Amino acid sequence: MRQNLQIDPKRLWDMLMTTAAFGGTPRGGICRLTLSDHDKAVRDWFRAECEAAGCTVTVDEVGNMFALRPGRRADVAPIAMGSHLDTQPTGGKFDGILGVLAGLEVLKTLHGLGYETNAPVMLVNWTNEEGSRFAPAMLGSGVYAGVFDRAYADSRTDRKGITFAEAIEAIGYRGAAKAGSVPIGAMFELHIEQGPILEAEGKTVGIVQGVQGIRWYEVTVTGQEAHTGSTPMTMRRNALLGATKLIEAVDAIALARPPSVGTVGLVEVKPNSRNVIPGEVFFSIDFRHPEEGVLDDMEAALYAAVEAVKVQTGLEIACDAIWSSPPVVFHPELIACVREGAQAAGLPARDIISGPGHDSCYVNRVAPTTMIFVPCKDGISHNEAESTEPEECAAGAQVLLNAVLAYDRKFA
Amino acid sequence: MRQNLQIDPKRLWDMLMTTAAFGGTPRGGICRLTLSDHDKAVRDWFRAECEAAGCTVTVDEVGNMFALRPGRRADVAPIAMGSHLDTQPTGGKFDGILGVLAGLEVLKTLHGLGYETNAPVMLVNWTNEEGSRFAPAMLGSGVYAGVFDRAYADSRTDRKGITFAEAIEAIGYRGAAKAGSVPIGAMFELHIEQGPILEAEGKTVGIVQGVQGIRWYEVTVTGQEAHTGSTPMTMRRNALLGATKLIEAVDAIALARPPSVGTVGLVEVKPNSRNVIPGEVFFSIDFRHPEEGVLDDMEAALYAAVEAVKVQTGLEIACDAIWSSPPVVFHPELIACVREGAQAAGLPARDIISGPGHDSCYVNRVAPTTMIFVPCKDGISHNEAESTEPEECAAGAQVLLNAVLAYDRKFA
Repeated sequence: MRQNLQIDPKRLWDMLMTTAAFGGTPRGGICRLTLSDHDKAVRDWFRAECEAAGCTVTVDEVGNMFALRPGRRADVAPIAMGSHLDTQPTGGKFDGILGVLAGLEVLKTLHGLGYETNAPVMLVNWTNEEGSRFAPAMLGSGVYAGVFDRAYADSRTDRKGITFAEAIEAIGYRGAAKAGSVPIGAMFELHIEQGPILEAEGKTVGIVQGVQGIRWYEVTVTGQEAHTGSTPMTMRRNALLGATKLIEAVDAIALARPPSVGTVGLVEVKPNSRNVIPGEVFFSIDFRHPEEGVLDDMEAALYAAVEAVKVQTGLEIACDAIWSSPPVVFHPELIACVREGAQAAGLPARDIISGPGHDSCYVNRVAPTTMIFVPCKDGISHNEAESTEPEECAAGAQVLLNAVLAYDRKFA
Repeated sequence: MRQNLQIDPKRLWDMLMTTAAFGGTPRGGICRLTLSDHDKAVRDWFRAECEAAGCTVTVDEVGNMFALRPGRRADVAPIAMGSHLDTQPTGGKFDGILGVLAGLEVLKTLHGLGYETNAPVMLVNWTNEEGSRFAPAMLGSGVYAGVFDRAYADSRTDRKGITFAEAIEAIGYRGAAKAGSVPIGAMFELHIEQGPILEAEGKTVGIVQGVQGIRWYEVTVTGQEAHTGSTPMTMRRNALLGATKLIEAVDAIALARPPSVGTVGLVEVKPNSRNVIPGEVFFSIDFRHPEEGVLDDMEAALYAAVEAVKVQTGLEIACDAIWSSPPVVFHPELIACVREGAQAAGLPARDIISGPGHDSCYVNRVAPTTMIFVPCKDGISHNEAESTEPEECAAGAQVLLNAVLAYDRKFA
């Protein structure tokens, strides 16, 4: 029976293209900032579609939307799908959106066949995953999971001085349900990979094991500003030459510990003038790995490199850990359902770790959770050029359906 | 007779402190931009002091001031001293100013004793050496030497849109003399070193052999922007890691060819975000050496390094030569006079090459020229903290006087 349930690839693609008009940009992307008029438009559309597919839609106090389709049993918490419909200012058509609309396609498939699941099935649209209009990111799912409270969310302010509270009231999406009150029994989030691994290996499905831990550092190297023409090489204290050694150390530390990644993305040179030897260089470090122990080891290697470069160059170097996000490990039972779902669909799959954070990181704190990845062209995301093929979107939706039904069997 | 002529250290220091009030800053520096009201005030003071010392002052069409003290012979061109009285926006009390006021102290010494030289002696205040208000630098001496024409100088515009022509008329320093028409038989310019060598070696006098040649390059390294979290180390095209290799190559190329200097002073990383792998890095290179042949060799080594890093990293790298200033070699006969002057004064001296450019670079094209350096604390210049001790200023002025008189002997 289960294997016969097939999502409708064309219906899914049509929904992706239809909703892409809410905030669509001339260059083929979407600018649909959270709680904007475009966000209201896509939310209204989403609510109507869910209701037409036999669901009851509940909105909570931070605008998270929950579309519930009853199952045979009312005594078990719903199996949830979903992601987010907000985008970056120059976002693409798939980041977050695919996870919501594929869930809607699953609901439509079940509804069209009159298929009764054991557990209720629920589709979620989380508010403000992107964090572009209101920082921080993953705000709606964070309030749901108790990471933030409602007052904190309400107090967030956009660049024009408008608060989250004012914005949510303005579009009429302040729901009556208290955040966290809508139960979730398990959560499956389909998402584009936002990286190049699946495409490079010709895999259609990423079976997501967890999300990397992240540690951020800030480094300031201090030497002595001086004239490039009149200061002999041997009398210089060139801060940039300390920075280059550490930038290369960051790369080497990550390369030596696969699948670690380590990156210096931001560099500021002072005074940044062609004929002045740099007196100070500031840069950021981003380390990621799925295990805290390896992150500890990378941090130790970084501090050792700092000490070595200090001794070698005589420069002053300050290195501070400024932020960390612990690794997330997804639920083995749900991961097994995704694996089974990919096999049943005959799709090439590989285990994968998510680099970016997702709503599922927070939901995982309060309910068994996992994610499904599909490829995106050249790994490009947060960009109007973001691209995933119709067959890849359909594959993701089919695995999502298969995984939900696999998990549902335990409630038979 | 010659050895008995001594400048007055206190009178020189008092002049330095008196004129430091024209544009003096609370932090002990000077902001005396060229052709400003402060520049007019110091020019008026300078003219009056020169006339009081028995000189005739001529101003040329770009504001260069020439104070002439007649000698025994009218048939030889004057032996000139001088430098500039304009400063950087947060300049110090010595850069340029010492060369002019030490020349004035020499004139006062000669005048006070009624000493008659063989050749006429002349003191010059060049307009707009700094180039801070009107680019380029060394504009007045450049017009004098025929490097630029008057129309070019007049057309220069400051940040407020005021032209050089408007500014010079506004302070009444458009002279009648055609630029280049005032003859110079030889030129001695005293200046602070603007570098750390003399101080480090405990030398009081730098016998300047010439000015380094300069070559500037611009490099753009292009890779691929990508998410730091989702892009494995082995699939990256990190432009910053190509840039660090070349920045270190610039250092190594200069270190291997003393007294070469090589510096990357300006670096721009794009998009310069903590969680984005750098897709593009732009940076400047400044190479200097006293010989063109060595600069050619450094350039060849740079292009070889670019090719090597291209192959090693697979990044695209564009490296363009954007500007060069040929080396300047000062006049052996004048250099010998400076050496003799330092010996006569019993001052520790060393031969030195100037890193920065000076008015003397242009004057050297039309008349025998050299320079005398004195130390400045920590090599710091173009800074309100610029500092040279009274004894060092006096030493420079004494060597200047001795060198002028040594050169004057040939006209006996």
